[in-house]
Amino acid sequence: MRDFLPADKARRERILSTIRSTYRLHGFDEIETPVMEEASRLSAGLGGDNEKLAFGVLKRGLTESDLHAAHHGSELCDMGLRYDLTVPLARFYATNKAELPPVFRAIQIAPVWRAERPQKGRYRQFVQCDIDIIGESSALAEIELITATSDTLRVLGITNATIRINDRRILFGLLDHFGFTDHESTLITVDKLDKIGVAGVSAELLERGASPVSVEALTALLESTTGSIPATRAAIAAALPAGVAPAAVESLATIAEAVQGTATLVFDPFLVRGMGYYTGAIFEVAHPELGYSLGGGGRYDGMIGRFLGTDVPAVGFSLGFERLVDLVEESDDAADDQLALLYDAAVDLDEVLAHKRALVAAGTRVRLVTKTKNIRAILGQLERDGYLRYAFVNAGEPLTIKTIEQQS
Amino acid sequence: MRDFLPADKARRERILSTIRSTYRLHGFDEIETPVMEEASRLSAGLGGDNEKLAFGVLKRGLTESDLHAAHHGSELCDMGLRYDLTVPLARFYATNKAELPPVFRAIQIAPVWRAERPQKGRYRQFVQCDIDIIGESSALAEIELITATSDTLRVLGITNATIRINDRRILFGLLDHFGFTDHESTLITVDKLDKIGVAGVSAELLERGASPVSVEALTALLESTTGSIPATRAAIAAALPAGVAPAAVESLATIAEAVQGTATLVFDPFLVRGMGYYTGAIFEVAHPELGYSLGGGGRYDGMIGRFLGTDVPAVGFSLGFERLVDLVEESDDAADDQLALLYDAAVDLDEVLAHKRALVAAGTRVRLVTKTKNIRAILGQLERDGYLRYAFVNAGEPLTIKTIEQQS
Repeated sequence: MRDFLPADKARRERILSTIRSTYRLHGFDEIETPVMEEASRLSAGLGGDNEKLAFGVLKRGLTESDLHAAHHGSELCDMGLRYDLTVPLARFYATNKAELPPVFRAIQIAPVWRAERPQKGRYRQFVQCDIDIIGESSALAEIELITATSDTLRVLGITNATIRINDRRILFGLLDHFGFTDHESTLITVDKLDKIGVAGVSAELLERGASPVSVEALTALLESTTGSIPATRAAIAAALPAGVAPAAVESLATIAEAVQGTATLVFDPFLVRGMGYYTGAIFEVAHPELGYSLGGGGRYDGMIGRFLGTDVPAVGFSLGFERLVDLVEESDDAADDQLALLYDAAVDLDEVLAHKRALVAAGTRVRLVTKTKNIRAILGQLERDGYLRYAFVNAGEPLTIKTIEQQS
Repeated sequence: MRDFLPADKARRERILSTIRSTYRLHGFDEIETPVMEEASRLSAGLGGDNEKLAFGVLKRGLTESDLHAAHHGSELCDMGLRYDLTVPLARFYATNKAELPPVFRAIQIAPVWRAERPQKGRYRQFVQCDIDIIGESSALAEIELITATSDTLRVLGITNATIRINDRRILFGLLDHFGFTDHESTLITVDKLDKIGVAGVSAELLERGASPVSVEALTALLESTTGSIPATRAAIAAALPAGVAPAAVESLATIAEAVQGTATLVFDPFLVRGMGYYTGAIFEVAHPELGYSLGGGGRYDGMIGRFLGTDVPAVGFSLGFERLVDLVEESDDAADDQLALLYDAAVDLDEVLAHKRALVAAGTRVRLVTKTKNIRAILGQLERDGYLRYAFVNAGEPLTIKTIEQQS
């Protein structure tokens, strides 16, 4: 967990504001949920491995005998900090459905918390930028999400990101086709492809007792797949054995054609993504400068039903804000109209304040600075803080505005 | 704790953005701290009664015997959710002082959490908007805080707020003057003036064992004080027995003169404010339509030293965002350029998407809506959601934009 100093905070707020306004343009509406959710909801099996990383919030008013009667810390917690924005969204939708449009396009830009071991580039509190479409079963939902995400990356100046896409039904279709019986555990192994390679996947599957014939067939496809198949109707069909998951192939082709020219889409038939709740398309944002994804998402048609009782189709796309921040080139900040007023005891305070008042009223951001002998140190600090214009307040005189360069 | 739906969230973000940009104009810089602070810091005696309301975060990896060895829940927590923004700011300043300007003007706009019993108008998660000036011992700090706060209220259209002001040194001076020995407990009683009246305060002080002569003298002043003394040098002096806290009176007079015309200031020699850490000026924003204050603050010169080791002067002013939101009149939202596109299966999806793309590129916010037979229901939903303009997508035709009023 980190403090954000003024320059960082301003930069983060500018980028968040760009993301928010671009998503809004694309027809999404921002909502907000409390940072704490009921503990039972956070451990309902919807958060995958993240559930184990949830921070628990202690019940209030516990007695010593309550503590001694407990077998596990979780029994002492009634709430927890959310570890993602998807579980809260599903709960939000179930609670507020009556007041939302039939197709609800949600923006959530908010921190989440995970009790991970501190390591480089990982934080225990970090911001996610999620968009989700609830109530749309057609590929239009995926298309709008991918379009809005690509446009946001473009507006932020991140031009060389590609979106890897697959469909859970293609994964399951392939496993069926090759005769695997335990889909869930097979996918856990396939998901390690990037780390352990084709030989590693093959060995692990055999160890786990998969049929050698199945493993051999899968290995052959893994070896022949380049991982950068252009997402076109023809290339998707050519990459798969005939007859595998035709509805999913058709859906991916529709998505690919619709976002052509807007997003760079790559078909990866072995993209798994961890979350068990995905039911259809899944995607991940790859960037050549990063060893990890900038974000991802997919269709999770079954999850809302867990809270609402009736199934509602849903697709989401999440961008990892902390990773984005590192990629966005700093825009020229000079646009911020700001000025430092240097004053000392020789000038009446009222005169200093009158200058500030007039400048602020005209839209100039003003910092008052007590003048000391070491003007050089003052100007150095101002320059570091982005105040490149300043003026001395002299009794009865109008302000003469100087820039840090004119210092001599 | 509440969910915020799109209309509420948009309204909140607009108001927050106004507050943020006005504070920025006045030379304040926004920072951010993690929502969790070390538990020991949250219970160090700096948060007054709020410390008891802190949500505790359970340590990770506790064993059953850890639970059984504990006598109190707090022993099982290493962190907690912040209950205010002042304790985190003091910690932030101590951590990051080297990178901050000598006089640091901070903005913090962020949620805090208190485990209060749910009641009308009170929430367990709520947003505070704090500005603080650290490193300025002169009244300039109070002047800049009051000016920035008043200006923010003015920009939000809240014109009839008054700021009640006092100084802890005046309170202590009065108690000395009247011969009270236990200042702390006397102030706790005086703080109840609004609730129990002069007679109640007088009775409670006697019960607590204060000298009858002291109580009689204090009661006489309480009775003769109107509670709405204009904050001018003459009126402040006239309201107090001669010789009480001359430095504080001089400081209040300086503040009052400097903010004249900017803020409506009222001197209340019996304004206490709960927090024990205040050392000088204290203020509170009163509004005729509210039975409670919109915000408040004061000088707390001793607190930073608790974290840093050396004392640093500091003053803060906090606005309660949830209370502000209720007061701000909704501005005309039509400024938001937004449009709904109604389409059905008779039109190629690519054509619908091309229309959306062109409108979004031109800065129009677009919502796609599937056309059903019940157009009236669709338009009703759009109107509720603020989409007053719409167009049907017809194959091969340009869009004809209609407004909800033209519906007939």
